[in-house]
Amino acid sequence: MSTNWRGGSAAVALLTFDVDAESAVLAHGRRYADHAATMSHQAYGPRVGVPRLLDLLDEMGVPATFFVPGWVAEHYPALAGSVQQRGHEVAHHSYSHRPPTSMTPTQERADFERALDVFESQGVGVHGHRAALWGASRYTTGLVAEHGLVYDSSFMADDRPYRIPTEAGEVIELPVHWSLDDWEQYAFLPDPVVGSVIESPEKVLGMWKAELDAMRHYGCLFNLTSHPFLSGRPSRALALRRLIEHALECGDVRFARCADVARSAAADADLTSHAPDLPAVDATAYPDP
Amino acid sequence: MSTNWRGGSAAVALLTFDVDAESAVLAHGRRYADHAATMSHQAYGPRVGVPRLLDLLDEMGVPATFFVPGWVAEHYPALAGSVQQRGHEVAHHSYSHRPPTSMTPTQERADFERALDVFESQGVGVHGHRAALWGASRYTTGLVAEHGLVYDSSFMADDRPYRIPTEAGEVIELPVHWSLDDWEQYAFLPDPVVGSVIESPEKVLGMWKAELDAMRHYGCLFNLTSHPFLSGRPSRALALRRLIEHALECGDVRFARCADVARSAAADADLTSHAPDLPAVDATAYPDP
Amino acid sequence: MSTNWRGGSAAVALLTFDVDAESAVLAHGRRYADHAATMSHQAYGPRVGVPRLLDLLDEMGVPATFFVPGWVAEHYPALAGSVQQRGHEVAHHSYSHRPPTSMTPTQERADFERALDVFESQGVGVHGHRAALWGASRYTTGLVAEHGLVYDSSFMADDRPYRIPTEAGEVIELPVHWSLDDWEQYAFLPDPVVGSVIESPEKVLGMWKAELDAMRHYGCLFNLTSHPFLSGRPSRALALRRLIEHALECGDVRFARCADVARSAAADADLTSHAPDLPAVDATAYPDP
Amino acid sequence: MSTNWRGGSAAVALLTFDVDAESAVLAHGRRYADHAATMSHQAYGPRVGVPRLLDLLDEMGVPATFFVPGWVAEHYPALAGSVQQRGHEVAHHSYSHRPPTSMTPTQERADFERALDVFESQGVGVHGHRAALWGASRYTTGLVAEHGLVYDSSFMADDRPYRIPTEAGEVIELPVHWSLDDWEQYAFLPDPVVGSVIESPEKVLGMWKAELDAMRHYGCLFNLTSHPFLSGRPSRALALRRLIEHALECGDVRFARCADVARSAAADADLTSHAPDLPAVDATAYPDP
Repeated sequence: MSTNWRGGSAAVALLTFDVDAESAVLAHGRRYADHAATMSHQAYGPRVGVPRLLDLLDEMGVPATFFVPGWVAEHYPALAGSVQQRGHEVAHHSYSHRPPTSMTPTQERADFERALDVFESQGVGVHGHRAALWGASRYTTGLVAEHGLVYDSSFMADDRPYRIPTEAGEVIELPVHWSLDDWEQYAFLPDPVVGSVIESPEKVLGMWKAELDAMRHYGCLFNLTSHPFLSGRPSRALALRRLIEHALECGDVRFARCADVARSAAADADLTSHAPDLPAVDATAYPDP
Repeated sequence: MSTNWRGGSAAVALLTFDVDAESAVLAHGRRYADHAATMSHQAYGPRVGVPRLLDLLDEMGVPATFFVPGWVAEHYPALAGSVQQRGHEVAHHSYSHRPPTSMTPTQERADFERALDVFESQGVGVHGHRAALWGASRYTTGLVAEHGLVYDSSFMADDRPYRIPTEAGEVIELPVHWSLDDWEQYAFLPDPVVGSVIESPEKVLGMWKAELDAMRHYGCLFNLTSHPFLSGRPSRALALRRLIEHALECGDVRFARCADVARSAAADADLTSHAPDLPAVDATAYPDP
Repeated sequence: MSTNWRGGSAAVALLTFDVDAESAVLAHGRRYADHAATMSHQAYGPRVGVPRLLDLLDEMGVPATFFVPGWVAEHYPALAGSVQQRGHEVAHHSYSHRPPTSMTPTQERADFERALDVFESQGVGVHGHRAALWGASRYTTGLVAEHGLVYDSSFMADDRPYRIPTEAGEVIELPVHWSLDDWEQYAFLPDPVVGSVIESPEKVLGMWKAELDAMRHYGCLFNLTSHPFLSGRPSRALALRRLIEHALECGDVRFARCADVARSAAADADLTSHAPDLPAVDATAYPDP
Repeated sequence: MSTNWRGGSAAVALLTFDVDAESAVLAHGRRYADHAATMSHQAYGPRVGVPRLLDLLDEMGVPATFFVPGWVAEHYPALAGSVQQRGHEVAHHSYSHRPPTSMTPTQERADFERALDVFESQGVGVHGHRAALWGASRYTTGLVAEHGLVYDSSFMADDRPYRIPTEAGEVIELPVHWSLDDWEQYAFLPDPVVGSVIESPEKVLGMWKAELDAMRHYGCLFNLTSHPFLSGRPSRALALRRLIEHALECGDVRFARCADVARSAAADADLTSHAPDLPAVDATAYPDP
């Protein structure tokens, strides 16, 4: 028997946290390991942001999913386990936080599997994957299926879950979007150059509430991506709390972990299916630069 | 008998949708065809944005114009026809979405005619043209006239329609402007680098309403450009609906397809005429870098 | 007898318009003369923006100053005269709109004098100067004094008029600032890359009103710079009108042309005087890159 | 006996002013010494901004800390002394305002000690340090401890004071953050390229009030960084005044100089301690570009 992936709610809300920490900066160049203050900016995530956000989730009584790069799990060995102990999901977010599109297929596979090794060695089961910088290549979903993960969360061809067929089997896609990411709103670093304007939590809260309300109207997946080194800051954490309060007051929004939604989606026979569209491109139309 | 192009309304509103899809990214380099997640970001336009926006236009009962690159019409063969069937106009938006200013005259002509061939093969009649990225060259309006199109919509020398004389005859210009484009407000991609800040639909709605009201004051053409992969997102689509509702409530705004306005403008003897101003530039004043 | 430069008002407001037109883009490279749509974006200034703004100034009954590059005065030969006929001031804004800091001293002098020749040939008297892009070099104020102009309006070391001594005599500086310029708020072009976000007139109006009110508090010169190709757009023009209305309602703001304020400032014995600070820089502290 | 660093208040507010003046631009290249108008933009800080802000602090009755590069103290020899005379703290902000991460260890040491020599020659005692651009290297805190300074204020691994152990002894860190800095909100220069959007003081005030309120909730250090050449402008100075008024009205916010907080923090036995995290980075994970 097929059941709708939303399970009767108007919209489903995923609170996802990408715990990139130092890896997001190291991916710009190994030399940044010596930029002590910049490293401290990233360390705020696991040190202050994650505990504060875990407390906030407890207070609100909602589940979440933490996408953790393997490098971060290794560097903060207690992190992934403590997230799971609080009832949340840990998922695969590459090893090094270098985007697949910046790697050869061999490098992408090695990076992907190295992260799995870390989680296995820590006894942390993972069921889904999100590409670093959402930079999935044509090989990414194949790797996800081949290694027995249930879902991916990097693509943007819809605002509801969909199936992606691969040679190694089907993957459930839980699509993301730049407009539901705190990075574009809050991130700022002069070196590496990241971000140009720091927006107010008030603007961000208004924008996300409007998107949640519109997604309730259209019956979508509200897949919010936050970074503890950004949204763990005091007024941003409280803005996130107000967003959760708003969603709870709506009464028709279901909060879930990614793996739970992936399972509901897999059981929904009406879910659309389509492969990533990788156009064969004509050199006449698009000559090399 | 000459009639005013506005036909008694305070302002005329054109809802135009540039269905760039993957072509807008491929124009930055053929290699992006392998960036699977980025391609999915663009595919959202034809897959989700266009149907949602067509429904919204039906609901509001207003006509619109869809500028479609030839590559997109080819890649999504049902797209142009389905837009026309819903009562909207399809118009020429280059083949590859590379701006004319980036091409030689020969390349521009080839790209222009290749798009016409696609529309002809699909039985889709087109009456107007908009340059990719509004990057019209000194040859663009000549090509428009030579191929029997009635209007162009890429220039910005006025906020009311005007005539552009060319060697192949006259073209009606339906001018555009960056401030009435959703791209500058919503577009964000890290690679290729597109956009730096994602604005809230609330800000955008306020800005566009203010411009519409000011255009009613001055008697202008409100020529709004939206992209289905951007404005098809839930809260942005609803903001667009609120804009249309506001315009309808004003009672003195006429919604039209571009070709309709071009025809009214052609019949208006008071319409100004002026050729694109291509200054002969003095090498003393502007030496080569 | 010395009199205070403000003449009893809380603040003095200068409405200045930099009529850069095509020159602001050509300064990025001669090749842009072929970018027909981009040229049309700039042509909107003299064609639509200037007449609309002149009407608005008439309606409000306030005087203004138009800084015109020599190239623009030549290219639009009726422009400078028509501005003067409406009771406003025309002033020197370079010939080519290339900033002095990008030129050799010889080039800067040639560009400066070429603009004076244009104004002389058109019978347009000018009394002040503003450097293109406010990019004054160490030679700029000397040129201003040597050619008998009374004031400059490019520096930012104060928010009240001050005297700049030069070898050729004293110049009155009417200081400017980036925060009272419409360029940073409204300008957007993808090629050349100009601007990254288009702000709403509502935000801009709020920011400028707050600055005017704070300048009334501190007794400053409110020196507003607008560009007709930007602020001539409908809703921006109306925002400018609301700003003027606000200032008029305050009852303690005096509107003036630059030359008038320069004269009052020259007669104020309490006006501070200081030369541009051009530090002798130590190569140990600031080694060449 | 250990006492809590907050001393009973909900949050502690540090008003800090980085008096970078010309040095912040000269650090981009010695050639900028010839950019006379750009230099004047920076000179506004010591000439107009600092006196205005000192008056404002007097009016409000709150203490502050001024971080002054040695080059600026030398160039404006009365500056540091006059700040101290008004009851505020002067602290070390490098000599040249080049970030440590851009220098060799030998250059960083030379620059650090050159600034100390300037302050010593002016009889100005300094107790703390802030790295230029917050660009602390792995050597920075060691230099701070070695030269007997009590605190540093450049790192971001927490939003409460913490101890940093170094080979030369312990340093108290008073952490900063980009979101409590006026630079990202207000700074704009076209050459060198600094900033892309000028935000309204109203937005900035709202954002900082929200962060202060959230920091009162979480018990944090509100460490605000302003630059006199930016926040000394009229409406920004008044926005800062409204922020201070708000904090005073809260009744549970303590204003202090950095050195005072560093002393309270040093006496708090519960203060966390952790060394800057300088990860040993694996060349397989992060290959050289």
